[in-house]
Amino acid sequence: MANLMLGKEVTAALNERIRQRVDRLKEKGTEPQLAIVRIGEQEGDISYERGAVKRCEMLGVKCRQIHLPECSSTEEVLAVIEELNSDAAVHGVLLMRPLPKHMDQARIENALDPSKDVDCMTDASLTGVFTGKKIGFAPCTAQACMEILDHYGIDCAGRRAVVIGRSLVIGKPAAMLLLQKNATVTVCHTKTKDLPSVAAQADILIAAAGQAKMVGTDYVREGQIILDVGIHMDENGKLCGDVDLEAVSEKAAYITPVPGGVGSVTTSVLVSHTVEAAEAAVCAENR
Amino acid sequence: MANLMLGKEVTAALNERIRQRVDRLKEKGTEPQLAIVRIGEQEGDISYERGAVKRCEMLGVKCRQIHLPECSSTEEVLAVIEELNSDAAVHGVLLMRPLPKHMDQARIENALDPSKDVDCMTDASLTGVFTGKKIGFAPCTAQACMEILDHYGIDCAGRRAVVIGRSLVIGKPAAMLLLQKNATVTVCHTKTKDLPSVAAQADILIAAAGQAKMVGTDYVREGQIILDVGIHMDENGKLCGDVDLEAVSEKAAYITPVPGGVGSVTTSVLVSHTVEAAEAAVCAENR
Repeated sequence: MANLMLGKEVTAALNERIRQRVDRLKEKGTEPQLAIVRIGEQEGDISYERGAVKRCEMLGVKCRQIHLPECSSTEEVLAVIEELNSDAAVHGVLLMRPLPKHMDQARIENALDPSKDVDCMTDASLTGVFTGKKIGFAPCTAQACMEILDHYGIDCAGRRAVVIGRSLVIGKPAAMLLLQKNATVTVCHTKTKDLPSVAAQADILIAAAGQAKMVGTDYVREGQIILDVGIHMDENGKLCGDVDLEAVSEKAAYITPVPGGVGSVTTSVLVSHTVEAAEAAVCAENR
Repeated sequence: MANLMLGKEVTAALNERIRQRVDRLKEKGTEPQLAIVRIGEQEGDISYERGAVKRCEMLGVKCRQIHLPECSSTEEVLAVIEELNSDAAVHGVLLMRPLPKHMDQARIENALDPSKDVDCMTDASLTGVFTGKKIGFAPCTAQACMEILDHYGIDCAGRRAVVIGRSLVIGKPAAMLLLQKNATVTVCHTKTKDLPSVAAQADILIAAAGQAKMVGTDYVREGQIILDVGIHMDENGKLCGDVDLEAVSEKAAYITPVPGGVGSVTTSVLVSHTVEAAEAAVCAENR
């Protein structure tokens, strides 16, 4: 049976480090602050926001919630972002996406100061992920996968990693982060032929396909490490991931469950990025 | 025996299209212009510049050569770039790299207007390559590989592509361009374990390892398509690539020779990007 890589274990260790850093910042007179901007009333957004607010509270990070109506104009959203950019007390900004379709996505996404871009919304942050340069932050979910691998002492160097999915939110950034860890990385997607056998070559498999229980035993080989980024409701109304956990557990060596896996780490990464942004702001002030 | 994919065949077709576009631009009163900035007297730079100047002449594109001494300061280089940015007659700028070590690479690289960045020097252009957004231009060599595949009617969709090398100049951008063509893409590098057998899984192999004749028969399988980006001098003083052409020719289906392969297409891609930049400038003026 596969060992479960539990989000709560990773998060506990991560939170402990975050708390220490928050304490040091507060000793120096800085309270790290995250601003969450939510447009409209999407259920997924509300639930993610709730989790983030709670995590911030728990870790001593101030959280400011800004809610705009679905019908807001691009200019109204830009005004909010501009205000947060110039507010020195705000260190990180999370704008819930996707944005309503009537808005100018590119203009809004790139309006945010990359130094406050804690979830990789700007092109500048994406450049950082692609080039390995220290610009902005990686997407929280992709970074959460790396935190899990690190926590369980999984060395990626020279190993074969396969990422299913090529989105800018998870697939491509996860591939770049794995490359930085010296893995040999393959990116698969909907056009990949014989996906199961490509996936089965992986030592480390990241499933970010967005399809419930798609990854079955034919994708998996003995001893594989699997990170499941998906989150869906199954036919019985229960949460599940991209991986058919029950089926693959026999073969895989390590796997993240859904719920209780990658998702729960993502929120702590968000807070961690905010604290890092606050630290950088303090450094910049003292320069 | 493998079919040779000859740079001159690809270039002939590409040049024909470029000429038509140059004619249309001139009819509208615009002469496309490329500025080449060379710092110091590196032999490789001089030889590449010579080729580019000749290709520009041949295709009716004006080419301005700017030579700065090796000892120039960052500020002096920035001043040249600023001048070229504001000169509406200049549509494309190629700055030879790597720059001398005493210079501020990042500042210089990002000083160029992305709309004139015909060889992907700026972070903005790299973002374009990573995201697929229309920002700047892809690196000429990576783009040349795609032009060769297109010219020989090689459909990448669903096929396995392996890129050896993860540099920002070739490896990573080539991987992104192959992903855009719907290939299943694997990036290998110096830390990859059992590189030959990973490479041998490729339908399409791009060798950008920077090591002479590294790719031998053990990297290749029957029917493979190989693009050789390397350029080296072998033990007999003859030009060769990353691929041991003679050895792999028995197995591979298609292969680019060195010299006469990817390199010769790169120069035409440079001119083609300049023409595209000129077209975009004309459109912007008419808006």
